[in-house]
Amino acid sequence: MITVLGGGVGAARYLRGLLQVVPAAEVTAIINTADDTVLHGLSISPDIDTVIYTLAGAIDPDRGWGLRNETWRAMEALGRFAGVRPSGSSAAPTWFNLGDQDLATHFYRTARLGEGATLTEVTAEIARAFGVEITLLAMTDQRVATRITVRGEGEISFQEYFVERRHSVPVSAVRFAGANDATMTAAAVRALTVAEAVVIAPSNPLVSIGPFRALAGLDELLAARRDTVSAVSPIVGGAALKGPADRMMDELGFESSVVGVARLYAPIASALLIDPVDAHLADQVEAAGMRAVVVPSIMSTPEISAALARASLAAAGARR
Amino acid sequence: MITVLGGGVGAARYLRGLLQVVPAAEVTAIINTADDTVLHGLSISPDIDTVIYTLAGAIDPDRGWGLRNETWRAMEALGRFAGVRPSGSSAAPTWFNLGDQDLATHFYRTARLGEGATLTEVTAEIARAFGVEITLLAMTDQRVATRITVRGEGEISFQEYFVERRHSVPVSAVRFAGANDATMTAAAVRALTVAEAVVIAPSNPLVSIGPFRALAGLDELLAARRDTVSAVSPIVGGAALKGPADRMMDELGFESSVVGVARLYAPIASALLIDPVDAHLADQVEAAGMRAVVVPSIMSTPEISAALARASLAAAGARR
Repeated sequence: MITVLGGGVGAARYLRGLLQVVPAAEVTAIINTADDTVLHGLSISPDIDTVIYTLAGAIDPDRGWGLRNETWRAMEALGRFAGVRPSGSSAAPTWFNLGDQDLATHFYRTARLGEGATLTEVTAEIARAFGVEITLLAMTDQRVATRITVRGEGEISFQEYFVERRHSVPVSAVRFAGANDATMTAAAVRALTVAEAVVIAPSNPLVSIGPFRALAGLDELLAARRDTVSAVSPIVGGAALKGPADRMMDELGFESSVVGVARLYAPIASALLIDPVDAHLADQVEAAGMRAVVVPSIMSTPEISAALARASLAAAGARR
Repeated sequence: MITVLGGGVGAARYLRGLLQVVPAAEVTAIINTADDTVLHGLSISPDIDTVIYTLAGAIDPDRGWGLRNETWRAMEALGRFAGVRPSGSSAAPTWFNLGDQDLATHFYRTARLGEGATLTEVTAEIARAFGVEITLLAMTDQRVATRITVRGEGEISFQEYFVERRHSVPVSAVRFAGANDATMTAAAVRALTVAEAVVIAPSNPLVSIGPFRALAGLDELLAARRDTVSAVSPIVGGAALKGPADRMMDELGFESSVVGVARLYAPIASALLIDPVDAHLADQVEAAGMRAVVVPSIMSTPEISAALARASLAAAGARR
């Protein structure tokens, strides 16, 4: 069994590569839920859905989120309420796009959670509905919410930062509300305990992997098996593969490079996979306490993705 | 000021006629909310929406509910979850059709209620968004739910009866859960107190007007001004203009005729408008305690609708 930790797009793409080299029945992915939000009364889990849609081959390849062949009729109709919303109300937001077909996923999740199902249970059901065969777990069944402090402005939700502000505002702090009272699920703990290897996907170290680490016990659990944990750097040539990881690391005082990533992950993983463009930093990665494994990390073809997956498993000591 | 009590389609059509003879600024409609439901986490008020969409000219003329030029992509996508829903779960129902554009209305209502707004406030905002100029009030801001006992089967919700079962199962009882603890809104009480005339629209006497009468004080309030209250019979020639009112009256021991309607409304209204096909029953209507006013009641043209509205006002003593 291989267990992967990650967020949305980076984890989804890494998993797509991994499934070329490991049978789906042997893969468990534990996904960040701190980006989850409630809009229009609907429970939305963006990272989980991105992984499911990607592995199902249903993701829109151009946008990188949401479903293919999507329509936006509900969103368009929402516009008429902007003029009647009282001041102070944030009802009927149109900045978070929800496609008409995608809505069905949120309807199902919301109804099942309302019936008392756990997010873990609902996630498994949604994955099955999309024909996804890996074991997909929520990081926690409790509410943890990433809160972003925008420099000179105050705190906003992750989606307000990521989508409404298009992550183009300076960040001065990040916290994970609720993390102190939340616990990893039993299934997640087990998957991290029994796995032959654990891989940290090329996700944002601060807001995709950070929430895991804010949960009691995660760091200790990985530290205890550190030799069989590898991580794929989401920073290549100093820039994030996707999203604001580079800027955010800078703004929060971490070096935006594979070295900065190594400093963050050294306590919980033994090897860091870095792209050849960063080979000159291998010594500094090692000085930060991680073994550097140089392998092409930009998953632009199935072959590169499969080779990256293989290297990440080997780095974690898995015999594949 | 003219105040109208009613449910969905019957009230909507009556109001459309009324607006030909009374300025919108002088009309208040108080609408049944006991058909309201929550599906997919969304707060849905079918009667209120039917009135708003009809008065906005946005209703689908063939279906009689929902919006024109509607699409059904979210509903179609919901189908994939039927196979993964655990037994006992009622998540992802596909028997209650929600059009993609229509969803935006439920999104807005759900979000505003979640912010603490009353249903009365949200209803006014949605009406304004659709350009509806009459004052539209919810019957109550509290939760009242019509519950239908299906003979030999047990109790189901109103929408399960009306939509899922297409009101084609025999009914042995109706009750309005929550009505004992609910109160009419202050705005509704005022509209019923200060109105020059009150008209009970041609709605189902049992499940559209019944919920109003289950609220403390409504019957007394109308009885106290009975001479200026008229009602339009929803039963014409023994049959309901729309929906299951005829069968339901039969099944619950009321005569399915204008006479049965008169017996129900005699305590709260002085005049009953009946169609010429029922003119032969005028004496029995009078014997039941209501003045019978014979006027074409099938609102098939704007002229007939306007004449019906005028007659209903005259019957309630309004000088128009």
